[in-house]
Amino acid sequence: MLLSVGHDLPYLTGYHAMPLERLTMLVVGRDGVSTMIVPRLEVPRVVEQPGVFTIVAWNETDNPVALVAKHLGNARTIAVGDQMWARFLVELLPLVPNARFVRAVDVVGGLRMAKDKAEIAALAAAGAAADRVAAQLHAGQIPLVGRTEAQVSADISARLLAEGHDVVNFAIVAAGENAASPHHHPGSRVIAKDEIVLCDFGGTMNGYCSDITRCVVTGEIPRDIAEAYDVLFAAQAAGVAAGRVGASCEGVDRVARDVIAAAGFGEYFVHRTGHGIGMEAHEEPYMVSGNTLPIAAGHAFSVEPGIYIPGKWGMRLEDIVVATDAGPVSMNSADHRLVSVRA
Amino acid sequence: MLLSVGHDLPYLTGYHAMPLERLTMLVVGRDGVSTMIVPRLEVPRVVEQPGVFTIVAWNETDNPVALVAKHLGNARTIAVGDQMWARFLVELLPLVPNARFVRAVDVVGGLRMAKDKAEIAALAAAGAAADRVAAQLHAGQIPLVGRTEAQVSADISARLLAEGHDVVNFAIVAAGENAASPHHHPGSRVIAKDEIVLCDFGGTMNGYCSDITRCVVTGEIPRDIAEAYDVLFAAQAAGVAAGRVGASCEGVDRVARDVIAAAGFGEYFVHRTGHGIGMEAHEEPYMVSGNTLPIAAGHAFSVEPGIYIPGKWGMRLEDIVVATDAGPVSMNSADHRLVSVRA
Repeated sequence: MLLSVGHDLPYLTGYHAMPLERLTMLVVGRDGVSTMIVPRLEVPRVVEQPGVFTIVAWNETDNPVALVAKHLGNARTIAVGDQMWARFLVELLPLVPNARFVRAVDVVGGLRMAKDKAEIAALAAAGAAADRVAAQLHAGQIPLVGRTEAQVSADISARLLAEGHDVVNFAIVAAGENAASPHHHPGSRVIAKDEIVLCDFGGTMNGYCSDITRCVVTGEIPRDIAEAYDVLFAAQAAGVAAGRVGASCEGVDRVARDVIAAAGFGEYFVHRTGHGIGMEAHEEPYMVSGNTLPIAAGHAFSVEPGIYIPGKWGMRLEDIVVATDAGPVSMNSADHRLVSVRA
Repeated sequence: MLLSVGHDLPYLTGYHAMPLERLTMLVVGRDGVSTMIVPRLEVPRVVEQPGVFTIVAWNETDNPVALVAKHLGNARTIAVGDQMWARFLVELLPLVPNARFVRAVDVVGGLRMAKDKAEIAALAAAGAAADRVAAQLHAGQIPLVGRTEAQVSADISARLLAEGHDVVNFAIVAAGENAASPHHHPGSRVIAKDEIVLCDFGGTMNGYCSDITRCVVTGEIPRDIAEAYDVLFAAQAAGVAAGRVGASCEGVDRVARDVIAAAGFGEYFVHRTGHGIGMEAHEEPYMVSGNTLPIAAGHAFSVEPGIYIPGKWGMRLEDIVVATDAGPVSMNSADHRLVSVRA
């Protein structure tokens, strides 16, 4: 197994590869012998862990991919980390012409999915920090009207840091018709009175991620939006309740989708219901049709249905949920209602 | 050619793929027909460019890699962007068993290396912004003694943003013996009086990167450090002067290295002399032994020799240089001397 950039490597060793053109690669053999191939100038960054891996340094004029191939020996099946730069795989292919490649998620994914107590505590702490920012949004403490989406995004980002996050991963702010774009990039559009503002934000705190979506209206809530939100609220609650140990991932999606479809909004719910979360904002398991994986205790994932009317408005409601033997536990408790704010 | 995450795609189209598990991929045919394969929920982010590419959306339950394979037709040689997630290449391999893979840098690298006037102006503006932060460091306006490296790194990051950068890419702060680790991660070590502090920082401003390294001493400059710095200063100046149109990239490295080696510090200069810079902090061309590429007008690169004495101290001096027909032009004019600061 080859691990480089991405979170499998820090999950197993505590070390993050620098996302640069100089290759860092952990070669994990079937026999348990692991070698961390590191640029010589980055060796001082790595704490060697006897019994876990040894370090092999490469010099600026060495070919690190050839070094990796040497350590692969006669490996027939090579598992590769999802986010490794393709460049290194392209360079490796001709050096191991008979190898078959698979995704390292087949090896590490199961381990990473099942969060232990400390990991769940970290997710809860990050979720609580995101909740506090959501509460500020609901309380009208984050000015909206007259500011651009980008300004509000920067404000939310600063608040995520102030509440304890180490890094902000994203802060989507989408007003009015822009909220119909699920991954809208906050821009120069100025937020006006009497419109919906969708805020989807999260960061990393002590190595684990938060991710929450709440919507507010800058004034009176129009009846059509209120009615659609009632549907969304019910769909999200149903999705959370479906996140039980032994249920399937696609079941969570289906339950939430059925509520929205039954109300006539099916065609406007254009994405899966959720994604796993942990060291990465998006990781296994995915709550999507076709994923029959049974939910196990410790699985952590988002439940985030949405309704998007192109050119008009959009809405999404999202919590992070951890499946436990006592049922699904939400990492977010911020008010789930659509709140009218004077901000 | 397949372009996804990374900077080849925005260089050619203006669009940045989201670095997530949902695939965005531009398929560029030899016939000039290009198709942008995008998750349906991200389609509103993409501005279609008639004559450049058309959009094909995939739904949450589609297999986007199969869609890519379909658009590849009978392609025999497939160029792949360096930073594409390996996961997508692993999934593509069995679908195109007879294809040969190469790096997209063979196609796009030459274009990206040769900066035009607007790009050079952007590099100069980013360089000037970084220079202003370096000037604040030299003027003693950035408190050092008694603060941790991490605190100073955060301070420098905030100043890069205040001076106009949109994003901070890195802010290495390494004190005393930590400065001997070229890619040191700024941590909890408190900066003391009378020690060297290496600061290497840069960000992105209007799409182009800055990158500068300056060192200061928090007190009197010891004689051994002053003498080594004189060598470093001369090596860096020689490297800049060698960055002439028609000279080789490895020549820049050799010239700087020879100065350091002649003074007896050769074994302590453990990295190449420089890297290209543009939309990415590190890109082609690399100033490294073995790279015989001739420097052309518009090539932009760092010249950053260093001397690192393990367990004791380290120093590096870095400017960004653009090769022009009138000779090398530095994007940085901040004081190149080793400055003693009361900060």
